[in-house]
Amino acid sequence: MTRTALTGQIRNKESYLCVGLDSDIDRLPAHLRGTRDAQFEFNRQIIDATLDYCVAYKINTAFYESRGLKGWEELEKTVRYIPSTHLKIADAKRGDIGNTSAQYAKAFFDTLGFDAVTVAPYMGFDSIQPFLEYGDKWTIVLGLTSNQGANDFEMLSTPDGLLYEQVLRKAAGWGTPGNLMFVIGATRAEMVGAIRTAFPDHFFLVPGVGAQGGSLEAISKSGMNRDCGLLVNASRAVIFASGGEDFAARAGEVCRGYRDEMSRHLLQNH
Amino acid sequence: MTRTALTGQIRNKESYLCVGLDSDIDRLPAHLRGTRDAQFEFNRQIIDATLDYCVAYKINTAFYESRGLKGWEELEKTVRYIPSTHLKIADAKRGDIGNTSAQYAKAFFDTLGFDAVTVAPYMGFDSIQPFLEYGDKWTIVLGLTSNQGANDFEMLSTPDGLLYEQVLRKAAGWGTPGNLMFVIGATRAEMVGAIRTAFPDHFFLVPGVGAQGGSLEAISKSGMNRDCGLLVNASRAVIFASGGEDFAARAGEVCRGYRDEMSRHLLQNH
Repeated sequence: MTRTALTGQIRNKESYLCVGLDSDIDRLPAHLRGTRDAQFEFNRQIIDATLDYCVAYKINTAFYESRGLKGWEELEKTVRYIPSTHLKIADAKRGDIGNTSAQYAKAFFDTLGFDAVTVAPYMGFDSIQPFLEYGDKWTIVLGLTSNQGANDFEMLSTPDGLLYEQVLRKAAGWGTPGNLMFVIGATRAEMVGAIRTAFPDHFFLVPGVGAQGGSLEAISKSGMNRDCGLLVNASRAVIFASGGEDFAARAGEVCRGYRDEMSRHLLQNH
Repeated sequence: MTRTALTGQIRNKESYLCVGLDSDIDRLPAHLRGTRDAQFEFNRQIIDATLDYCVAYKINTAFYESRGLKGWEELEKTVRYIPSTHLKIADAKRGDIGNTSAQYAKAFFDTLGFDAVTVAPYMGFDSIQPFLEYGDKWTIVLGLTSNQGANDFEMLSTPDGLLYEQVLRKAAGWGTPGNLMFVIGATRAEMVGAIRTAFPDHFFLVPGVGAQGGSLEAISKSGMNRDCGLLVNASRAVIFASGGEDFAARAGEVCRGYRDEMSRHLLQNH
């Protein structure tokens, strides 16, 4: 999906919401557990109920890999089910030496048909470059993450700024705002304004709203650019809004709530 | 596999070789391509031919994920086929927020039955800790990698040494030499002596010998400790030693050569 198509979706839907399908099999509603293809069936109903309010779905590969072959099968079914109007993100955080990263890029872009994949920057240029070679796809580099552990390394001082700032600066030179995004955690809203000033054009994928406690209002005010430039992800707060048979309807309501708030932030930004 | 069991294997076999099953489907011998379970069949023959000369197998998940469901199936078959005498390493380089890393740990340790998994440190403590909770398993943290891109971030100065040194120091505090190893690239042999002095007890998983150009002699002389403390990996140099019907026999010969050299290094170390 091109940047033009993505920003068009955001304008039309008045939403920059990404729904995270962290569909932990042990947390599915009781009436689904033990049924055939429970994880896919859960995702299918979540997608049907939320697609009017979001522009992207993010599949967290861990929650499928943990089930082995069966989980991988349900992941494949899920990504095929997501309509082409929505950006399909593999939240996989891969990264390895060049010939191996090329295999990961093939896995997520070619074999599975995702539009975007998250990558870990530790190993540097040649671990990320194979993903960027797919011209019509998106590479989403971890910058400043939403978790406590971000303080361990991402926030270390280097001769040229904090480590995460170095990562953003170098990675920005490897791709373009048309094929590269950054992960910027919503739990760090006080730092997002400065990041936006330094990187005015890039899209930021923002996890941490909802269960992790980040504020949608704060991140929207400090992080938006003229194209919106944000994809704000909510996972558990949406998909586990209800643990009962009404899970999909409740997920839809929560997403409509986010959309309504996002619509106001987009309006204020213009 | 406990540290005692691993060092016992190294002593008995006079080898600290790890064979990397980077079994790229497009590089398999012509007579196997297109046959049923070609990737597993290739691995099975490689394992049969090499198990006397090595103490570990490292499965690089990318080369299986790139094939989707079928690749994942062949990965599962392969790991089940590796005998329990050998350390089974998932070279997966995972790492995410805590609840997600817990799912990856479950995937590789419980569901797939690996003994060890490689993890990426960028996101810090809570991304690694869930792996360390498996007391009888090994977490292998990326320290100084063998690729060119290691210069981008791993070698950056911080107030307390280079970034990779900080990673090693912090991670060493999170685990023990009985459940934590480090990835230290063989292409950096000139730096390995200093790393060994700083971390006298930990095992190092050393990629980069063979196709990537690292020297087994140099890494052995500078990196060994009293328990050996090294697992030296070779992938392409072993499994693609021949592209013909004799691929397994040739892989065995290459491994026997490595074992003979390792046997000498072990002897000199005592």
